[in-house]
Amino acid sequence: MGEITRYGDGSRWADMVVHRGTAYWVEVADDPQRDTDGQIAQVLEQIDATLCRLGANRSDLLQVLVYLADLSDGPLLNRQWDAWVSPGAPPVRACVQAGLSPGYRVEMVITAAVSTATGDR
Amino acid sequence: MGEITRYGDGSRWADMVVHRGTAYWVEVADDPQRDTDGQIAQVLEQIDATLCRLGANRSDLLQVLVYLADLSDGPLLNRQWDAWVSPGAPPVRACVQAGLSPGYRVEMVITAAVSTATGDR
Amino acid sequence: MGEITRYGDGSRWADMVVHRGTAYWVEVADDPQRDTDGQIAQVLEQIDATLCRLGANRSDLLQVLVYLADLSDGPLLNRQWDAWVSPGAPPVRACVQAGLSPGYRVEMVITAAVSTATGDR
Repeated sequence: MGEITRYGDGSRWADMVVHRGTAYWVEVADDPQRDTDGQIAQVLEQIDATLCRLGANRSDLLQVLVYLADLSDGPLLNRQWDAWVSPGAPPVRACVQAGLSPGYRVEMVITAAVSTATGDR
Repeated sequence: MGEITRYGDGSRWADMVVHRGTAYWVEVADDPQRDTDGQIAQVLEQIDATLCRLGANRSDLLQVLVYLADLSDGPLLNRQWDAWVSPGAPPVRACVQAGLSPGYRVEMVITAAVSTATGDR
Repeated sequence: MGEITRYGDGSRWADMVVHRGTAYWVEVADDPQRDTDGQIAQVLEQIDATLCRLGANRSDLLQVLVYLADLSDGPLLNRQWDAWVSPGAPPVRACVQAGLSPGYRVEMVITAAVSTATGDR
């Protein structure tokens, strides 16, 4: 079904998949050696980079599911998130604690809208 | 990308986002002082209210991801859920235990269909 | 809103829901008596069966959210996953540890593309 566009060249997972104007992807920090604040910052930067690649921006985010290794990091998340998210156009968000791979502090599952002209070829 | 409709006026997250005929939102009990049964009841009521706002109903639910603070509350969930869900037209459902914010017993991530005439402006 | 197609005859949840060319479903092993490897194998077989029912295949998978009862089972998952997933066309994947019902080792939440000719009636 040719309407799926995939990004990334991994064999285990795609970096991003676009289908019918909706983009799906997952982010963890490229550098899990960073502390929690550093990983949150990096994940948000990576989301920005992916949105840019789609010709989209933060106001195109539809849903973000956040998994924290320790829910007591919620205030750290919120401090950066509140400064980062599009004012007046935030996505839906869930945030729960779940077990992540060793060293990882945060994982985000993202759904975003893309225009048919760019991402949904 | 103007085809996104957001509900709610929060700066951290939207109450609901509608894109291309699909609505996305997250519910926790408005009153986390309630016990588990009370929180489940309230979350289901809140879903009803959101569906109503969309001009939709329970048979329009596509997927519900349930996070319970304690999976042993599953029978409490099921008792209310089974009486609540649309007979013959239930959504897909996953239910796992995850860490929730203090006091919260249940969190649900909802995906629903909306007609283009109402929610997907 | 008549554009939803449901599969399954359960009253608690649908086996699968299709809406606007996107299929949503959740899998756990039909036989939770199996060990972890056996449950992973069975869940992947069940996904294949569901894709077949949709007239789709593994390259139509958009997103798979994996919940493991024990994240140290990740290598077992990856060994089977890597051999199973469509070469060159893997889905987006998240994998976290969450509490599952007694006996269950793995639960997957799947999103896939279906052609309008088959699943999205």
